Amino acid sequence: MDTPSKSTMHSATSRTGLEVRLAARPEGLPGPGDFEIAEVAVPDPAAGQVLVRNLFMSLEPGMLMLIAGTSGLPMPRYEIGEVMYGAAIGEVVASADPSLGAGDLVMHRFGWREYAVAQAGLFRRVDRHAYATPSTHLGSGLVAYVGLMDAAQLRPGDTVFVSSAAGATGNMAGQIARLKGASRVIGSAGSPEKVAYLTGKLGFDAAFDHHDGPIVDRLREAAPEGIDVYFDNVGGEQLHAAIEVMNPHGRIALCGALDRQGKGRPDDGPGNLLTVIGKRLTMRGFTASDHLDRAPEFDAQFRTWLSEGAIVHDETVIEGLANAPQALLGLIKGAYTGKTVVRLGT
Amino acid sequence: MDTPSKSTMHSATSRTGLEVRLAARPEGLPGPGDFEIAEVAVPDPAAGQVLVRNLFMSLEPGMLMLIAGTSGLPMPRYEIGEVMYGAAIGEVVASADPSLGAGDLVMHRFGWREYAVAQAGLFRRVDRHAYATPSTHLGSGLVAYVGLMDAAQLRPGDTVFVSSAAGATGNMAGQIARLKGASRVIGSAGSPEKVAYLTGKLGFDAAFDHHDGPIVDRLREAAPEGIDVYFDNVGGEQLHAAIEVMNPHGRIALCGALDRQGKGRPDDGPGNLLTVIGKRLTMRGFTASDHLDRAPEFDAQFRTWLSEGAIVHDETVIEGLANAPQALLGLIKGAYTGKTVVRLGT
Repeated sequence: MDTPSKSTMHSATSRTGLEVRLAARPEGLPGPGDFEIAEVAVPDPAAGQVLVRNLFMSLEPGMLMLIAGTSGLPMPRYEIGEVMYGAAIGEVVASADPSLGAGDLVMHRFGWREYAVAQAGLFRRVDRHAYATPSTHLGSGLVAYVGLMDAAQLRPGDTVFVSSAAGATGNMAGQIARLKGASRVIGSAGSPEKVAYLTGKLGFDAAFDHHDGPIVDRLREAAPEGIDVYFDNVGGEQLHAAIEVMNPHGRIALCGALDRQGKGRPDDGPGNLLTVIGKRLTMRGFTASDHLDRAPEFDAQFRTWLSEGAIVHDETVIEGLANAPQALLGLIKGAYTGKTVVRLGT
Repeated sequence: MDTPSKSTMHSATSRTGLEVRLAARPEGLPGPGDFEIAEVAVPDPAAGQVLVRNLFMSLEPGMLMLIAGTSGLPMPRYEIGEVMYGAAIGEVVASADPSLGAGDLVMHRFGWREYAVAQAGLFRRVDRHAYATPSTHLGSGLVAYVGLMDAAQLRPGDTVFVSSAAGATGNMAGQIARLKGASRVIGSAGSPEKVAYLTGKLGFDAAFDHHDGPIVDRLREAAPEGIDVYFDNVGGEQLHAAIEVMNPHGRIALCGALDRQGKGRPDDGPGNLLTVIGKRLTMRGFTASDHLDRAPEFDAQFRTWLSEGAIVHDETVIEGLANAPQALLGLIKGAYTGKTVVRLGT
């Protein structure tokens, strides 16, 4: 083993790390050939920069939209031949800026690579002692929280339906809805095991498998008095069904469109917009980035819920960057439960 | 001529009037055979009731939904064999309730008939001197007003797009948007004559014929800096295009779905819901009935605008109840400009 303090600075010029680039823009779902894994030299940080060794990166269904180059995205698509990006957490190895120092734990957008070198202002220091594992910082709780509180205007007593409820955002949305006063929480998922997970470990009041017959019938059975809030991760038939089962003045938070992404092609929107008018429903697209002012409030609540055992935070951990492209496809296909992260270093 | 005061009470028992009943529930658009026009005896008002001779009734595209029996409506569908209903204005002929007296001008929901007899509480007295013609009370200004102010949260400086803008609600929405501070108002309509009407008499900044090439291209030309508010009367391709051209955080008031109604069958919703998420758009269905508290405020503004010549209130008047079914079909097909009313009496 090298002596850490000296070797760190000395070996920086010869340090290499893996990164994942988009190799081609696929028509439908990407395959292994659409990604390129390269080993690159890691430069020393220039003045004002820091060098970060990544520990974990987030895998998110929305990355498929950045690969497809879908129009109307709130962030730049991935470009062919360039390294991809995404939320990650790492440790500062070397700093050429006074704002950060070696050993700091930082959140940033330079995922899909083992080492990141960039301006210090693009990294945000987080509390090393906040959670048992740094990957918890990558959780989707804030997205779920602002979707419920801001986009869907959740009120105590609401009946809430969450699609893709065993996934990262969905399982947070269902649990947070309950903690914020929903009287009944219903989830859908893609397998009997996930349905059992929702009504068992996560404490949902009802759940169903979206493969199991007409969704509108399953939803009506699960919500005999109708639903007031729908947290939509999928679009498609589930959105149509939610509109049918909604109570007047119901609110829909549009968070994702997995149904479309899974097919890799545009999906028809719900054909029941007259019902949206008749019931005076609100459908609102949102992203967490518009609501970062909610982060301190959410973080405080989340830590309290975790410490009290009031909320379950499950993770699927993929080992190593080389496995990340295949894991992204698995994520889209529903292979994982809870938040999916990739371990990039230890 | 009879002496009015005496004959009114005496002849009431032998008075007859026309009414229009739904004869069948058509699959697509209704035809003449789906309506039955009957002459019926008009009873004297019982205790607590009034007898009203109708002067005008409103024709509205939404009536097609009541004929079709579309699910999710905020009001009861028309039943086969029963007289249809809708907004109307008339004059009290005889009253058996102290709250109303002969000669009062009243608004109510008993359209599609020449005479209405019902509980006095179902009629609302209006100011006989408010407008030059009683039909102005049937205008769609309040719908447009609450759609802009409540559903779309109109802000000064917004660029506003209105579809079916030469129609009753659309022409009000475009004019009211301007009067409430929109910086640019764009309309679509179904003929070159209507387009000229929008940019000419009504003062829209830009307008286009929705038959004229890809709607998204016409809309981009008309709104090079994007749109902030879309007042949607049609759904379909225009809604899809509006989502494409909207600025981030844009707001869509869902008022009607003429595009679907004109086809008489369900329409696919917009396939670009990912764009709704990416741009963080809000789509909100609404009906004026939820916002009747706005009526006094709107009425006062509307009278001022009319008296100052700041707003144009155009009407198409159909003569006689027997012509109303055919006129409803003409309305759906875009035959008329401005508000369409049927004169039932003079």
